[in-house]
Amino acid sequence: MEHPATSVDVEPPVTVQGAGELETLARILPRLPRGSRTDLGPGDDAAVVSAPDGRFVVTTDLMVHGPDFRLAWSSPYDLGWKAAASNLADVAAMGAVPTALVVALAVPGETPVADLEALADGLRDACAVMAPGCGVVGGDLSVSATLTIAVTAFGDLEGRRPVTRDGASAGDVVAVSGPLGRAARGLALLFRLGVDHDGAPDAVAAAGLRGRDPDVGWQLAPTPPVADGPLAARAGATAMLDLSDGLALDAGRVARASGVVIDLDSGALGADPTAALSGGEDHSLFATFPPDSLLPGGFRAIGTVRAADPGSPPVTVDGVDPGATGGWDPYRRWSGDRG
Amino acid sequence: MEHPATSVDVEPPVTVQGAGELETLARILPRLPRGSRTDLGPGDDAAVVSAPDGRFVVTTDLMVHGPDFRLAWSSPYDLGWKAAASNLADVAAMGAVPTALVVALAVPGETPVADLEALADGLRDACAVMAPGCGVVGGDLSVSATLTIAVTAFGDLEGRRPVTRDGASAGDVVAVSGPLGRAARGLALLFRLGVDHDGAPDAVAAAGLRGRDPDVGWQLAPTPPVADGPLAARAGATAMLDLSDGLALDAGRVARASGVVIDLDSGALGADPTAALSGGEDHSLFATFPPDSLLPGGFRAIGTVRAADPGSPPVTVDGVDPGATGGWDPYRRWSGDRG
Repeated sequence: MEHPATSVDVEPPVTVQGAGELETLARILPRLPRGSRTDLGPGDDAAVVSAPDGRFVVTTDLMVHGPDFRLAWSSPYDLGWKAAASNLADVAAMGAVPTALVVALAVPGETPVADLEALADGLRDACAVMAPGCGVVGGDLSVSATLTIAVTAFGDLEGRRPVTRDGASAGDVVAVSGPLGRAARGLALLFRLGVDHDGAPDAVAAAGLRGRDPDVGWQLAPTPPVADGPLAARAGATAMLDLSDGLALDAGRVARASGVVIDLDSGALGADPTAALSGGEDHSLFATFPPDSLLPGGFRAIGTVRAADPGSPPVTVDGVDPGATGGWDPYRRWSGDRG
Repeated sequence: MEHPATSVDVEPPVTVQGAGELETLARILPRLPRGSRTDLGPGDDAAVVSAPDGRFVVTTDLMVHGPDFRLAWSSPYDLGWKAAASNLADVAAMGAVPTALVVALAVPGETPVADLEALADGLRDACAVMAPGCGVVGGDLSVSATLTIAVTAFGDLEGRRPVTRDGASAGDVVAVSGPLGRAARGLALLFRLGVDHDGAPDAVAAAGLRGRDPDVGWQLAPTPPVADGPLAARAGATAMLDLSDGLALDAGRVARASGVVIDLDSGALGADPTAALSGGEDHSLFATFPPDSLLPGGFRAIGTVRAADPGSPPVTVDGVDPGATGGWDPYRRWSGDRG
């Protein structure tokens, strides 16, 4: 027997409001990784995580619907992945091995429970790929008009000092691991082409774009080189941070905190040095190493550190202040044949 | 020289959007307590907190504008205080001493920076009163249409096992520290009298009410007995939790997790046993202790634990199931002269 198209029954999805907190949690919790450092997982007033060297690293990051993501572009799985990735990168940037996450979610009542399952899968897979052994040990679930994801991540320093921003010295090698400018290029593509005729974010256009250009995927679900953080610390990194606001700005933070000048080489910044210098959200790792270090993992040299110089800006590219004109202009600052 | 009333200049408040992230943080951070366990505070990719016994306790809680608070009733200072208090109580309920908090805030761009300063003051004062030495070691600040506060709190178990919900044994004494039903009574008063003629939350009505009735203050800015958590653990508490959903429900959690029956004595539940059994958000501590224990701190006995009994509900009050009629009716279940 055929159903006419107009009478096909489509079950409405079970929403968070419909399922209630207990059933929603019962569907999410089994999808989350327990982690090898979890002494006590979700279900009590608090979790217990082991911190073998008597300290732990902690960082927290919010992702808010509107300023931080658009639901036409990011799937729930992407959101879980990216929330984990950005926090894992912060832990890695201290030279620590991620051990655990807690996740607080505030979602509109009409959110399908299946979306939260997908978000949990994104968290789980991001941990499995970037930080095996890292568990989700607890969280909170609340209702809000604005979808908000608050992840707090923990790490183990394995007995080392944390690699802060203020340790770079004259003569150090400046290096990065991970891409430069990809996430920003992906976002620019989404704003230009991932939209409908009225310029509004569009899911179909974005999905097509993502299939054609991997930078879009890096914007929506980046895979920062988390394992390279502890590798850098073991190799003696003198300073390190997570590149979230663009190389020029973030290198300036290290330069100022360390009281040094960082000279970058535009030839080492890839095909689009402008994007490399200004583009945020890559979550690549920026580090300085003692002279003649063997750079670990995916790190590659992009410049050198020299002594503070009152006549110099904190960061130069090919000897010139990239911020002098309020933004780096590749056509003015170096010749096109250098990349 | 007199200004006519209509031309008095009132400076508009500096908003988060107007001040920007850096200036806002520069105004908030100095107000926050550093804490005695902070190895590395705010300003780098992550903080470092000491965990002397090689483990740490962690809990996270969201407060969302709308479901969790109304700005006509709660001041920014109250919000900071309550966000700290509810998380500190969760740490205490594991038997741990709170060591640190991280705080992620998502606020509308038009929020005055002064409101965030007041929120920081509430966090600071709550730590000073309930958990001296506990610092705010990091956080995140974001823009959102919905004011959202995500606090993650940490604690030190001082070498003890965590006091979970599943350790109550037949013969144990059931005890609480802190009020029962006060926060719910305060909330009911606010809904009845803290409103304008149209029933909308009203700041002036609420402030007057708060001055007259301390239960309103307990709802808006509770002071749970945080120090009694570690005291209970040292005294051998077999199970413990934070009373956030009302005594009947929360005692049921302990009973089920422990596989026992908890018999409560209505005469020990204060003047309004109904409110005590059903009222949430007190953040008092519920614990079970071995028979003949000397109850520590502010704990008082309210019942006993007996062996699991397939014929009995998990919790009884004067031998009767408080949930049998979908709510506890004091006039049906016991005589008024017992309180």
